[in-house]
Amino acid sequence: MDIIELRRDLHAHPEVGFTEFRTANRVVLELRSNGYSVSYGADVMVPEWRRGLPPSTQIDLAYERAKNDGADETILQGMRGGLTGVVATLKGSAPGPTVAFRFDMDALPIVESTDSEHVPNANGFASLYRGEMHACGHDGHTAIGLAFAKAMSARKFAGTLKLIFQPAEEGGRGAKSMVDKGVVDDVDFLICCHLGLDLPLHSISGGACDFLASTKLMAQFHGVSAHAAAAPEKGRNALLGAATALLNIHALPRFSSGATRVNVGVLEGGTAPNIIPDTAKMVLECRAESYEVNQDLEQRVRTILLHSAAKHGLTCDIETIGEAATAVCDHELKSLVLDAAKFIEFFTEFKDEHPLGASEDATFFIRRVQELGGKATYSILGTTIAAPHHNPKFDIDEQILPATVQLFERIAMITLQTRAE
Amino acid sequence: MDIIELRRDLHAHPEVGFTEFRTANRVVLELRSNGYSVSYGADVMVPEWRRGLPPSTQIDLAYERAKNDGADETILQGMRGGLTGVVATLKGSAPGPTVAFRFDMDALPIVESTDSEHVPNANGFASLYRGEMHACGHDGHTAIGLAFAKAMSARKFAGTLKLIFQPAEEGGRGAKSMVDKGVVDDVDFLICCHLGLDLPLHSISGGACDFLASTKLMAQFHGVSAHAAAAPEKGRNALLGAATALLNIHALPRFSSGATRVNVGVLEGGTAPNIIPDTAKMVLECRAESYEVNQDLEQRVRTILLHSAAKHGLTCDIETIGEAATAVCDHELKSLVLDAAKFIEFFTEFKDEHPLGASEDATFFIRRVQELGGKATYSILGTTIAAPHHNPKFDIDEQILPATVQLFERIAMITLQTRAE
Amino acid sequence: MDIIELRRDLHAHPEVGFTEFRTANRVVLELRSNGYSVSYGADVMVPEWRRGLPPSTQIDLAYERAKNDGADETILQGMRGGLTGVVATLKGSAPGPTVAFRFDMDALPIVESTDSEHVPNANGFASLYRGEMHACGHDGHTAIGLAFAKAMSARKFAGTLKLIFQPAEEGGRGAKSMVDKGVVDDVDFLICCHLGLDLPLHSISGGACDFLASTKLMAQFHGVSAHAAAAPEKGRNALLGAATALLNIHALPRFSSGATRVNVGVLEGGTAPNIIPDTAKMVLECRAESYEVNQDLEQRVRTILLHSAAKHGLTCDIETIGEAATAVCDHELKSLVLDAAKFIEFFTEFKDEHPLGASEDATFFIRRVQELGGKATYSILGTTIAAPHHNPKFDIDEQILPATVQLFERIAMITLQTRAE
Amino acid sequence: MDIIELRRDLHAHPEVGFTEFRTANRVVLELRSNGYSVSYGADVMVPEWRRGLPPSTQIDLAYERAKNDGADETILQGMRGGLTGVVATLKGSAPGPTVAFRFDMDALPIVESTDSEHVPNANGFASLYRGEMHACGHDGHTAIGLAFAKAMSARKFAGTLKLIFQPAEEGGRGAKSMVDKGVVDDVDFLICCHLGLDLPLHSISGGACDFLASTKLMAQFHGVSAHAAAAPEKGRNALLGAATALLNIHALPRFSSGATRVNVGVLEGGTAPNIIPDTAKMVLECRAESYEVNQDLEQRVRTILLHSAAKHGLTCDIETIGEAATAVCDHELKSLVLDAAKFIEFFTEFKDEHPLGASEDATFFIRRVQELGGKATYSILGTTIAAPHHNPKFDIDEQILPATVQLFERIAMITLQTRAE
Repeated sequence: MDIIELRRDLHAHPEVGFTEFRTANRVVLELRSNGYSVSYGADVMVPEWRRGLPPSTQIDLAYERAKNDGADETILQGMRGGLTGVVATLKGSAPGPTVAFRFDMDALPIVESTDSEHVPNANGFASLYRGEMHACGHDGHTAIGLAFAKAMSARKFAGTLKLIFQPAEEGGRGAKSMVDKGVVDDVDFLICCHLGLDLPLHSISGGACDFLASTKLMAQFHGVSAHAAAAPEKGRNALLGAATALLNIHALPRFSSGATRVNVGVLEGGTAPNIIPDTAKMVLECRAESYEVNQDLEQRVRTILLHSAAKHGLTCDIETIGEAATAVCDHELKSLVLDAAKFIEFFTEFKDEHPLGASEDATFFIRRVQELGGKATYSILGTTIAAPHHNPKFDIDEQILPATVQLFERIAMITLQTRAE
Repeated sequence: MDIIELRRDLHAHPEVGFTEFRTANRVVLELRSNGYSVSYGADVMVPEWRRGLPPSTQIDLAYERAKNDGADETILQGMRGGLTGVVATLKGSAPGPTVAFRFDMDALPIVESTDSEHVPNANGFASLYRGEMHACGHDGHTAIGLAFAKAMSARKFAGTLKLIFQPAEEGGRGAKSMVDKGVVDDVDFLICCHLGLDLPLHSISGGACDFLASTKLMAQFHGVSAHAAAAPEKGRNALLGAATALLNIHALPRFSSGATRVNVGVLEGGTAPNIIPDTAKMVLECRAESYEVNQDLEQRVRTILLHSAAKHGLTCDIETIGEAATAVCDHELKSLVLDAAKFIEFFTEFKDEHPLGASEDATFFIRRVQELGGKATYSILGTTIAAPHHNPKFDIDEQILPATVQLFERIAMITLQTRAE
Repeated sequence: MDIIELRRDLHAHPEVGFTEFRTANRVVLELRSNGYSVSYGADVMVPEWRRGLPPSTQIDLAYERAKNDGADETILQGMRGGLTGVVATLKGSAPGPTVAFRFDMDALPIVESTDSEHVPNANGFASLYRGEMHACGHDGHTAIGLAFAKAMSARKFAGTLKLIFQPAEEGGRGAKSMVDKGVVDDVDFLICCHLGLDLPLHSISGGACDFLASTKLMAQFHGVSAHAAAAPEKGRNALLGAATALLNIHALPRFSSGATRVNVGVLEGGTAPNIIPDTAKMVLECRAESYEVNQDLEQRVRTILLHSAAKHGLTCDIETIGEAATAVCDHELKSLVLDAAKFIEFFTEFKDEHPLGASEDATFFIRRVQELGGKATYSILGTTIAAPHHNPKFDIDEQILPATVQLFERIAMITLQTRAE
Repeated sequence: MDIIELRRDLHAHPEVGFTEFRTANRVVLELRSNGYSVSYGADVMVPEWRRGLPPSTQIDLAYERAKNDGADETILQGMRGGLTGVVATLKGSAPGPTVAFRFDMDALPIVESTDSEHVPNANGFASLYRGEMHACGHDGHTAIGLAFAKAMSARKFAGTLKLIFQPAEEGGRGAKSMVDKGVVDDVDFLICCHLGLDLPLHSISGGACDFLASTKLMAQFHGVSAHAAAAPEKGRNALLGAATALLNIHALPRFSSGATRVNVGVLEGGTAPNIIPDTAKMVLECRAESYEVNQDLEQRVRTILLHSAAKHGLTCDIETIGEAATAVCDHELKSLVLDAAKFIEFFTEFKDEHPLGASEDATFFIRRVQELGGKATYSILGTTIAAPHHNPKFDIDEQILPATVQLFERIAMITLQTRAE
């Protein structure tokens, strides 16, 4: 199956974060067949460091769907409960550096457009799973990873090639559990990538900047219900606590040190007009240009949540359901990516860094590699997009896929050969 | 089918407000078979004055359920869309006053207890419709109405007997549409009733007092969504508007003129942590000891809703989804009820008025009858209850059912005969 | 000086709570000259149980004013710092019960009307101290107390007569410090009184009901100031904490057990538009028909204050600046008062209890006497008032003054003679 | 009097915005004595475009103080009510461009440090007007203006020299009224300046950037007072409206287009704990990196104020009490300033633009000149400061004063001679 077919098969079978059973099963099988040593599930993830797991019923339904779709049961069992990460290594013929590439596999909870002009409809590869859609290009990322794996299996090199397939990038939920398992602790060079964003086809950026550190939280307020007419004073009103938290979180100060964001995106509570509401659930996020400011901001948000609850006699449980850090790409590696790209005819415009202005949990991989003395970058590969990322009509120009495989081969060969001492 | 069997059949087939298709169908058939002239649907209700209709899908499912259960299709069609009120009249042999009795038919959205000691379980008549339950005794009310109708069909009297079977009492949603259709405009004497409350078995109250006027509202806030990191200023945040409304509604002043209540019982809004929420829905109520104070309070609540929306650039649609008024029972009729009860051996304790301390939309019937010169009361018939009203273990002592039929026959015979000029 | 002259002298020299130096000095001298044993200052008050002391500069200014006005310096020194309570006893010729009468002496911070038709202007006894005014009748209370003291000094009786002159009744600030010093611990019968309220001239009520328990608090929020443009995140915003407390205090639930009240009456904070405000001061009160509910409510208010502060990184100091309890007047004593009044020709209408619907710290005296087995009441003496209490045009009809002295003599003679075992 | 004596005299007599009577009187007299044609008062200001006038009592007190200090009464009368702006022109011997310099004269409401090491104390020129202080260097600006005026009176040149002495720069209150009177409508080159900021002595910046547009507002809420226990529902609570406005203003969204600020710096309302507060006053500001965003933000703030008031039945009057715009300095003029400075030995470090990161109403002059085709800049003259601007220990190194006069002479001679066509 060529890279285009592969990407279209993945596009037709989108799986949201921590339910990528069919996708990850396929990744395992392809990598094995190309001679890689493959690990997955609890061998490459710390289960409790995953963030924002879907309800177990949703995970189980996706599991069954993958099984019915023919996935290998032994592999599936190793991923049961949402342990859908995969790591593969290929050893070269001589000692040398470890060079890793990281790809994300998850789709979004979006209903794909039924417009007949939307290319996946016109060409018969639109989502078969209603309510899930590859609207951010991760189908392309995974396809690149597999085609690149195959290409490298035919190459001779020194050192170790490591391929990381991460679940649940959306919402910043999957990277931390792989990083904490140590999957990049031996990595000398790490290349992360993203298709599109707002770079045009034929452009490439060696790195990215302006990552926003981000934390996503779920807060659950618990009070006491009571009849709103008969005994309102016996209640402890969860919505009063939640509403005052919401206002005060938005009222947190602007920071002079750079841009920040806060948003309470979801609030749900109560059951009936004549009952003092005893529960309320809030989903929210904060972001900042600096990791430290984001931590400060998160701490202030948590303080407001807890005291807003306490002041109405409520308890408040707070869970981190997503996270991303900031990162600075290494100059040496950005240059190496661009130098490699200049040898690929396809690429004609070259940029040192492109501003992301958003959040990415690849930053946890990047920071870990750098902390241990390695180099890392986050390269952006321009492509024409039919609509903005996360839009029901999102689509990519597939020309970028084989070009990226070519580029990654070149990067791999440079880092694995010339850089080995 | 005797009154106990009848009540148990109704208990096993509970239908929430405006979905009483099976119940109302049965009421129509029973009344017709006893010689009553029966009207229903749009002939006895102004459709647009109904409050808080369930979603049409829920109404349609109940409709199909009743059809599958063998309900008469012609009758069902006349009630399509939730027009489940029924009015029956029986003319006496001579001219005379019109005497009406009003019964409510709806169940509650409560999952009935599965405790084996709960009588409906022990005796095999627990709810067959999961999530719906007669937890307020309206099954008993309807059974009394039908047994009383049958008993009266064998009697001779002057004047007109009128029986009103009202849907959707819970939440104050059904009475107004029947009153506005004029179904009590010709009524000289109106008897409304309720089983239980906190009167013990063998006690009876001729009337009730301390009705709380009440209004239930649904407010929908509409704003503009936007990416919470990329362009928060482009959003118009529906949850900010809703949260500030919630706090300010609860902060409305206490009234020196008597007790008031406000409660925002439900708030739901937003979709994801990284999206500025563009919609929020709020369900709330206000109450007061006086109708006028409740109107003042409702006006203040609406003012807060609208300005809370406007201050964040939102629109706010407000719908009244339930209403109840206050009422004062007529002394003459309270005495008549008690005098009649004293002839029934079953009743041993007699009370002029029992405080309700809650809301009832029978008050709209009572006020209308009184406005046009008639007399009305709301009598309470004591019975042992297994758990509080609206509790999953609620049950009544069925002894009160035949005793009430006897009482109503006596009241009817007095008012229809001796009171005719 | 007769009682009318006395009252007019007091009216012309009004002194607000804890600054009644001139008034109390005069009370001491008059009582001594009538043979009473007189205590004052720290001998009759626990200094730290006084509530809501004015600033020491204000106390000192009033002190100097009294000194310049000729007050006795030795007496003044015993009252320095606002210890302006006075207690006097007169022993009878035989053992017997202790019968106490309590009078309050303080004025209000109100600018008296300059309207020429206002009687104190027309008759030349309007306030000489601008911004202070006897607008609640306490000048009359004190005058009654002194005239009554003189009358009793000529009588023979058994037991002990005790006269209590309390400072700072307004705001519920003075009683507690005298009660806690034990000044009524030996009292068998206690008569408290108030002129006017809404009883007409010639009417008298033996007791009062519907006292509202009340607590008045001052909360001071302390944060950190910062330049609002240069470094807003370095501030800790006292007004954000105070504003969220204000909203949430008003949003506390209504109580089904009876009427409650909350009010944040004053909020002041911040210095300039471009400075994050580091301080805010809030003055507020809560009230309830029951002492226990008021305590519950006060606790909820304090919880909200503390957590509203904590959630914005502030501290909050809370001080009780006023208090009143509820009380129930003794039936026996109410009857005795009315029986006595029936012998005074002046009184023609008699009422068992008059509802106060307000707060009074005489309740602390009443509760203490009752706890120790004595009897107490709070009698209301009707008089025509020119404008409502606390209004700049308030004035009383002075006819009530000598009539009340006559009544109190009769009550004293009954309780001191016939009631002694 | 040399420039140092002059500055020290001004420092000892600080006058806050719109009360600069003594200062402006002195400016008029000095300029006249040097042959300038001088206008002031309503001839150079539109009275109603002044922002944030102090209370008239404060203005009048300052007026009397200046009169007692020997100011010319005719001049004073032309400035009565706070019309303290002055404009002077000196015509050259031939036609040519109009070159203007703008100086601000106002002090701050700060109590100057009494520390003996504070130079103005050590040298006997500390503020004689308690509570007012030159803590921002405007005394230096005015002294420079007068010494420069004198120097230029001895020079020959073509064109017109125009000197603008502006009142009330602090808070952005004075510039607009002079701009709207047209005082810079004929200006070809405009030089504004500021001492210190954070540039060291011997440094100079040709221009400034990062001006924050700013609006300062005063909002007055008016409701209805009522007794908080007797009739809370009759009140319309001004503090409830103000507190909800405060929270919601701080909760306005961050803007993706650049930094913004909001701050409610002052809130004051209410009179007593037992009175529903009927008035509240709020002083607040908003700022943004762009003039348009600040206008958007101001509009949102106003919307929140009005709807927060309306939702509690209040009215809200909003007054603009201060304003500043953004501005971009002209490249040509920045270069000219630096080129001139390079000829003055005193200056050794040269900077094209220094970021202000604050607000300045000189921006209104700059924008007006540029709109009409002229060039303008805002130059910063480094000096050692003893403490930050607006601090009670602020002081400048006076060496910068004569150096700046030298620089301005050079700039004036270049622009007035060589630039005339």
